Amino acid sequence: MQDNKEKYRELANRIYDLDGEVYQCVGSNLGRTFTGSRENTVRNLSVLMYTKPDGHLLRSELALISNMARTIKDKEQRSRLMEKYNQILRDIEDLPDVFGKEDILDQERVALNNLVSRRQKISEGDHLVICISRTQGSAGNDIGFELADDLKINYYDVEIFDQVLKRLEAEKGAVNDKESFADFNKYGKRHTDLKTVLREFNRYHGLPKQDAVFFNMSDLICNLARTEDCIIMGRCADAILKNNHIPHVSLFISAPFAVRVQHIMAVRNMNLKQAARFLRKMDRQHRRYYEFYTGEKWGKPENYDLCINSANYGIKETIDVIRRLLDE
Amino acid sequence: MQDNKEKYRELANRIYDLDGEVYQCVGSNLGRTFTGSRENTVRNLSVLMYTKPDGHLLRSELALISNMARTIKDKEQRSRLMEKYNQILRDIEDLPDVFGKEDILDQERVALNNLVSRRQKISEGDHLVICISRTQGSAGNDIGFELADDLKINYYDVEIFDQVLKRLEAEKGAVNDKESFADFNKYGKRHTDLKTVLREFNRYHGLPKQDAVFFNMSDLICNLARTEDCIIMGRCADAILKNNHIPHVSLFISAPFAVRVQHIMAVRNMNLKQAARFLRKMDRQHRRYYEFYTGEKWGKPENYDLCINSANYGIKETIDVIRRLLDE
Repeated sequence: MQDNKEKYRELANRIYDLDGEVYQCVGSNLGRTFTGSRENTVRNLSVLMYTKPDGHLLRSELALISNMARTIKDKEQRSRLMEKYNQILRDIEDLPDVFGKEDILDQERVALNNLVSRRQKISEGDHLVICISRTQGSAGNDIGFELADDLKINYYDVEIFDQVLKRLEAEKGAVNDKESFADFNKYGKRHTDLKTVLREFNRYHGLPKQDAVFFNMSDLICNLARTEDCIIMGRCADAILKNNHIPHVSLFISAPFAVRVQHIMAVRNMNLKQAARFLRKMDRQHRRYYEFYTGEKWGKPENYDLCINSANYGIKETIDVIRRLLDE
Repeated sequence: MQDNKEKYRELANRIYDLDGEVYQCVGSNLGRTFTGSRENTVRNLSVLMYTKPDGHLLRSELALISNMARTIKDKEQRSRLMEKYNQILRDIEDLPDVFGKEDILDQERVALNNLVSRRQKISEGDHLVICISRTQGSAGNDIGFELADDLKINYYDVEIFDQVLKRLEAEKGAVNDKESFADFNKYGKRHTDLKTVLREFNRYHGLPKQDAVFFNMSDLICNLARTEDCIIMGRCADAILKNNHIPHVSLFISAPFAVRVQHIMAVRNMNLKQAARFLRKMDRQHRRYYEFYTGEKWGKPENYDLCINSANYGIKETIDVIRRLLDE
């Protein structure tokens, strides 16, 4: 502790001196960062170095000095003082209890984050699986399809799952997820007669039809992600893979409502009112489906690795952003 | 129109033939993509090519065929069929009314998106200004500070704004935003006596103190963004720059609540209960501040260029993700 105190005082003195030197070179009209006496400043800075939660104030003081130092015109002077600054920063980072020491890391999720694990070669065998959730009208499907084409990997959306499941389940009867998604209303009234209920009960092993569809879908998604590189659109694929501990990248693509309305009007030949109503309905269905099967909130940034606002990039640049992220 | 119909039929025939050839090579147990007769399939495919809103179904059919084609073992066969597939895709993209034709693009926002404008050299003179909004406990400040250091650009957070504003306004008396942020409660009761109200009225030109602070801050942020490369933490900087048509990159950094609680416990020496209560309070203050001054919802993905879940990367990798995005 005594050792540390000495170290703190020494560092604080170097910071105070650096501020003075930088001010001499650049002469800001705001004056020096530290306006008090050396004695007071050194005491305050030393305290900041071991005080939680205020350690981050030290960072702000340092940033103020370096912001000023970077404006020094004389190149030699500038690099001399920046070198001093960098050395101080390195010495502070070596202190036991200081800002930036505590990482923010969900070990389990980082291990599942394909973007990290593949780059760090944590697990060579993993396939590149990109799950894309998106809001209707954000051109998410266009982006997913073109991205798959660029990366030369497989593309799966609801239509494809639907066809594959239909054929896999041909003998048990068609299990159509698209239908179940559109119908999705877990708590609403269901107009089915007893005969239908009994038939569905047998067909889906006692599960409600939409749950049976979801479980078949989950199996299919897990199998795909274990065996090939691919892009999977929607279907809560990110949550399914997370629960099954299968590495993937989870993206959420959206755009402001007004821009999505414009897009839908163009793509679906709708007028403003129709497009707005259609979008609100689709958003509601998406939200319900996702929240029911995952228990998570749809479209909350902390449920994905990354969220992209496609309206601020356009289709081509959004694809480019994702490719730069993959860095392959 | 007659010309187009011919073109549609010709393309549909090529798609049908490709499916047959791919099936011959790979022999999937799911069978061919098209199980119907040539006549019916060609008619259906042709219709898809000019039908809105169902044009995207064509994409799914194509993806099914190419997914299968990519599994062909014989390399020569595979590249021959993939070449046919790519040619079909190119020809379809040349059709007037087909999927992927309508970009999703907010021209105004794209022009302000530094990530795009700098890469496309739309506006050479622009400074690189990165606005980082973040939730408390997501290590957003650590990320911003280290990123600024890596990029050798200036770093501004509330402490720095506070000091700068204090000095700029020294003659009028200190205008302290940190204080006003913590106090922020636009509609709550304010325990101030008449004397204070009158003094503040004069000092802030008739504006409530917190609004005066916000306007001074806005000026400062716009001036910075016009004159230097920098990273600006919080303070609604993204919304301020957007309203003033100043190019920037807007990022939102967050992490799941449970991970943020762990981070706060470590950084602030708090127990679980204290940390959770602290976070809820800070989230509430952030939300109110942002929503009051911007009219936008805080932390909604479509209000930013990009949202990053720092818990799925850790500090170093988050910085790396941002640097890869900047591609500089």
